[in-house]
Amino acid sequence: MSLPVPRHIGRELWKLAQRPKPAVAQFLRAPESRQFVASPVRTFSYHSAFRAAERKAPPRPSSKSRRFGPLPVLATGGGVLTLLFSVFQPVPGTPLASPDDISAAPPHEPTDAVADDGFPRYRLSKIKEEHGPKSSQPWVVFEDKVYNITDWIPTHPGGDVILRAAGGSIEPYWDIFSIHKQPYVRELLDQYCVGKVHPDDLENGRPRMNDIEDPFVADPVRDPRLLQLTSKPCNAETVGQDLAENFLTPNDVFYVRNHMWVPVIEDKTGDSHGITIELPDGEERTYTVGELKSRFKQHAITAVLQCSGNRRKDMTEHASKTNGLQWGSGAISCAKWEGVRLRDVLADAGFSFENPPEDAQHVQFSGLEAYGASIPIRSILDPRGDVLLAFKMNDLPLPGDHGFPVRVIVPGTVAARCVKWVNKIVISDEESTTSWQRRDYKCFGPNEVKNLDWDKYKSIQEMPITSAITRTRLKPEPESKTIPKEKAKDAAGNNLIQIEGYAYSGGGREIQRVDISLDNGKSWDQAKLIDDTAHEKGSKAWCWKRWRYEGAVPLEHEGDEHEAKTTFVVKATDDAYNTQPQCYKSIFNLRGNLATAWHRVEFDLAKCHERVQAAQKELKNKK
Amino acid sequence: MSLPVPRHIGRELWKLAQRPKPAVAQFLRAPESRQFVASPVRTFSYHSAFRAAERKAPPRPSSKSRRFGPLPVLATGGGVLTLLFSVFQPVPGTPLASPDDISAAPPHEPTDAVADDGFPRYRLSKIKEEHGPKSSQPWVVFEDKVYNITDWIPTHPGGDVILRAAGGSIEPYWDIFSIHKQPYVRELLDQYCVGKVHPDDLENGRPRMNDIEDPFVADPVRDPRLLQLTSKPCNAETVGQDLAENFLTPNDVFYVRNHMWVPVIEDKTGDSHGITIELPDGEERTYTVGELKSRFKQHAITAVLQCSGNRRKDMTEHASKTNGLQWGSGAISCAKWEGVRLRDVLADAGFSFENPPEDAQHVQFSGLEAYGASIPIRSILDPRGDVLLAFKMNDLPLPGDHGFPVRVIVPGTVAARCVKWVNKIVISDEESTTSWQRRDYKCFGPNEVKNLDWDKYKSIQEMPITSAITRTRLKPEPESKTIPKEKAKDAAGNNLIQIEGYAYSGGGREIQRVDISLDNGKSWDQAKLIDDTAHEKGSKAWCWKRWRYEGAVPLEHEGDEHEAKTTFVVKATDDAYNTQPQCYKSIFNLRGNLATAWHRVEFDLAKCHERVQAAQKELKNKK
Repeated sequence: MSLPVPRHIGRELWKLAQRPKPAVAQFLRAPESRQFVASPVRTFSYHSAFRAAERKAPPRPSSKSRRFGPLPVLATGGGVLTLLFSVFQPVPGTPLASPDDISAAPPHEPTDAVADDGFPRYRLSKIKEEHGPKSSQPWVVFEDKVYNITDWIPTHPGGDVILRAAGGSIEPYWDIFSIHKQPYVRELLDQYCVGKVHPDDLENGRPRMNDIEDPFVADPVRDPRLLQLTSKPCNAETVGQDLAENFLTPNDVFYVRNHMWVPVIEDKTGDSHGITIELPDGEERTYTVGELKSRFKQHAITAVLQCSGNRRKDMTEHASKTNGLQWGSGAISCAKWEGVRLRDVLADAGFSFENPPEDAQHVQFSGLEAYGASIPIRSILDPRGDVLLAFKMNDLPLPGDHGFPVRVIVPGTVAARCVKWVNKIVISDEESTTSWQRRDYKCFGPNEVKNLDWDKYKSIQEMPITSAITRTRLKPEPESKTIPKEKAKDAAGNNLIQIEGYAYSGGGREIQRVDISLDNGKSWDQAKLIDDTAHEKGSKAWCWKRWRYEGAVPLEHEGDEHEAKTTFVVKATDDAYNTQPQCYKSIFNLRGNLATAWHRVEFDLAKCHERVQAAQKELKNKK
Repeated sequence: MSLPVPRHIGRELWKLAQRPKPAVAQFLRAPESRQFVASPVRTFSYHSAFRAAERKAPPRPSSKSRRFGPLPVLATGGGVLTLLFSVFQPVPGTPLASPDDISAAPPHEPTDAVADDGFPRYRLSKIKEEHGPKSSQPWVVFEDKVYNITDWIPTHPGGDVILRAAGGSIEPYWDIFSIHKQPYVRELLDQYCVGKVHPDDLENGRPRMNDIEDPFVADPVRDPRLLQLTSKPCNAETVGQDLAENFLTPNDVFYVRNHMWVPVIEDKTGDSHGITIELPDGEERTYTVGELKSRFKQHAITAVLQCSGNRRKDMTEHASKTNGLQWGSGAISCAKWEGVRLRDVLADAGFSFENPPEDAQHVQFSGLEAYGASIPIRSILDPRGDVLLAFKMNDLPLPGDHGFPVRVIVPGTVAARCVKWVNKIVISDEESTTSWQRRDYKCFGPNEVKNLDWDKYKSIQEMPITSAITRTRLKPEPESKTIPKEKAKDAAGNNLIQIEGYAYSGGGREIQRVDISLDNGKSWDQAKLIDDTAHEKGSKAWCWKRWRYEGAVPLEHEGDEHEAKTTFVVKATDDAYNTQPQCYKSIFNLRGNLATAWHRVEFDLAKCHERVQAAQKELKNKK
């Protein structure tokens, strides 16, 4: 199917919406524009929007007084929303839908009709049983009201992820997608109100906590060795010891960055899961994972994934407050990924790599849980780009937290583009319209903290160079049974230490030098790069380099050697001779992205000794 | 012609030579190894070496006492040499060739035979006339001695560039290729001594200055607007004003970096100039420039060329002494280049891009003047790499200084790989063996200043991000006729200034932000990026971004406003969010390469005013 689509209209609309003016407001008020945007959207795509607008009736008209206005800037983001919300949204202050409006709702037998306010009453058990995700009339509950969202689903900017809440309370989802906690969203929902919750099912005017389903109920159990920052959604970093000891991070301790819950895949093989590919001409083709596995050659690469917020905590500590999860240096891991090349699949679907159409500028991905992001077309035009649809991680099927049954791997690129549980791929002339693409993952200048123009800078894609210290030990190791004093000192009586860590650069640029300072940057020496090349697979240098340094700690104080304190620093250089910035202040950005400054670790010899002594004591007690 | 070549022997030989040991010395002394290296080499290639060794007789045996030993490290390099010299070289202290040895030289009628020391005497005019570059018996003169180099030419590590000196004194060439100024080279030459210069042609034991030919005699006249660092060879930078005013640097003021003289091309069209391509299987194919122009599609790209030593002077000033030309911030320029794609030519010559052989790891280039360098094969595997054999620069034939009739353009890569006057291209399993490839253009750590292991780091290829201030003016411009005081100040009475400059990153990474500080890095603002996109051509972002900033200079001193002094700083960020290092000390390296730290410019308002007043005075005087 090929459909001529006036994309420029979509583009113009987008541009206009970026700077509301009287003329724009006028344009936005026009009913035809409202119908246009009220078309069904999953990954927002003007194709789908247009096609759907032809097929579907617009949703029930809202109350007459609804108007459109600008949305406050979502600097702290993290919610779902799709920017559409910021384009077309009612202004607060509109009255709730009246019972008269509700009379227009489809007829339904209430559990317990109550006449005094004109609202029928429904039992929660009945709603769950009859109006769940698979029913033809899905309902949701918010506080004490019941809503029939059947007509709203095709219009929902987040797509049918809303069905996840069907049959129960929508409240926990709004806790995740906080964009919904605005009056105009409530007002929109009120159009679909069909009744109220039966008073026996209410406590203080809302369903009991026990009756509200936890969206994360099916999330996998996480390894206790992970350091959890948040549990719902799960965000957990790999600890220093696991980073230091493994070139390929074991699946159980690979850092987890979820924006939402882990989608439940009923087919335990994952093979029936489908991915729909949409080409610039509107042509669509759906592949099941089983088909991908059987029809295309499988490839293995090893690659680092890293969150753009890795080391954000350091930026907050050394520069100024940043928004977002306060990661340490463990929002990074490395694994072997196996799957099919996205290039091969796109070529099979009909995309021409020899003569890519001019409007093929971005590859948009969406996942089952409503997350979406995109990469520039250049990432797949380079045959050595190694972009995969991956099914396996370190020789095992992808774990739920890492995208089972299939995720995108774009090596050398920020992990936010490596969409998990991917079910739709669109080749488009524009970036994904999600806030994860257009807002959250960008860096402004240190001075740019308000009135941000979100289009000014590019989304983070290829990662810059970074490095970190993951473990510092007295030599011999404090964990060792005894500390032979003479071996723990150099000729001058300084304590010998061992420092370990990683260094990584994006875009396939290989780390070639790691500089270490034991005196806070006054003097430097080189760490030894650990040779993990036997494990590396792929067309470019997609992995980190682990490094190790052994040296003598200079004593700052005369006298008591245990008082020695100093700062260890690491900085790395890649093969384009890019290196890390010296301090966080010069790269500070509100979102705390790409905190790649020299990594500094305070070292306190006394504490080290205490740890050793405690270990020795424990050992004695065991004997 | 396809020839099985045991390249591994060459590689092993190379490795052995890096760390001389008794066993190595033994190996090096073996006559067969000497014969092996005594094969004719232009671009050093083991293919050619082997093939030639089959064809040619070894040179005249040297004196019996010649032995081999290690060469001192060439930290300050810049000489030609080809590293072969460091592999096979006689140890100093061997006696000069005796007149007895000379009796073995081919018979020749001396101009004026002198019997007392057994050496025949020759007139310089006769040597020039009968033993020039085109004679069958080319001779050179050094001090008062005359040498027949006929047998040495095929063995000369620098190739037949030595013929440039034939018929005259070799001294000026040794001034350029300073590697020759070592006892073992003199000793080597002495084997070929055939006589002495006639005493009438000597002054203080050597030919008169007027009788020594200047290798640079045919060099083009340079534009006086260029700032010359050296004239022979010519090294000249583009001044700030020309950098600020032009997106495409005019050819006349495009910076010049020559390692030697400008080769003379007798065919004024350049079309008969040949380039020989050697594939990994030894297959050779020669194309003339005329053939390249007529048979292949021509492409145009715009790209920056930058010397790795750009801003080296700043590193010397702010960190420590560096070796090499002390460039300011003008060893960079941008031009439009037109020519044929190297990929197309290599494919025509028989190179398979679909299944490149495993030993295709590097593309080596050599130029007519003996310069050589290489790029990794990945640069041409990416179809969007845009590597050209360029004939035109800014719509004109390449100027002599920039490689007429053909040079390599590797956009996004250091200019040292963009070999000028290219006449040989070899696809090899190893880098070019020249010191320009394996030594000069590398960066060691700040502490690595002696006992360098030259194989430890990679050669500079893709350039890291950099930026510089090229012009600072009071606003309105000091060059303007009058300074209306009220417009030159902001509301607070601060002087308004305008700062301009460039920002550039290699590898096709686009500049996306330029931060400016007027107070030495305490606070930041963003410069406006000048939109030159209409002039940009190419698959990736190969050009610089020019930028402009207008702001108010804060006064440091109360009272006299003319005393205001401050430091302006610029730093840039590219689309991989790589940014510049803060200071030179942390990136210091002996060779002063890649001095990409934040660019700082001292600003003295008083001096600015003086300049304005001088301009005004001059203007009045003209009236």
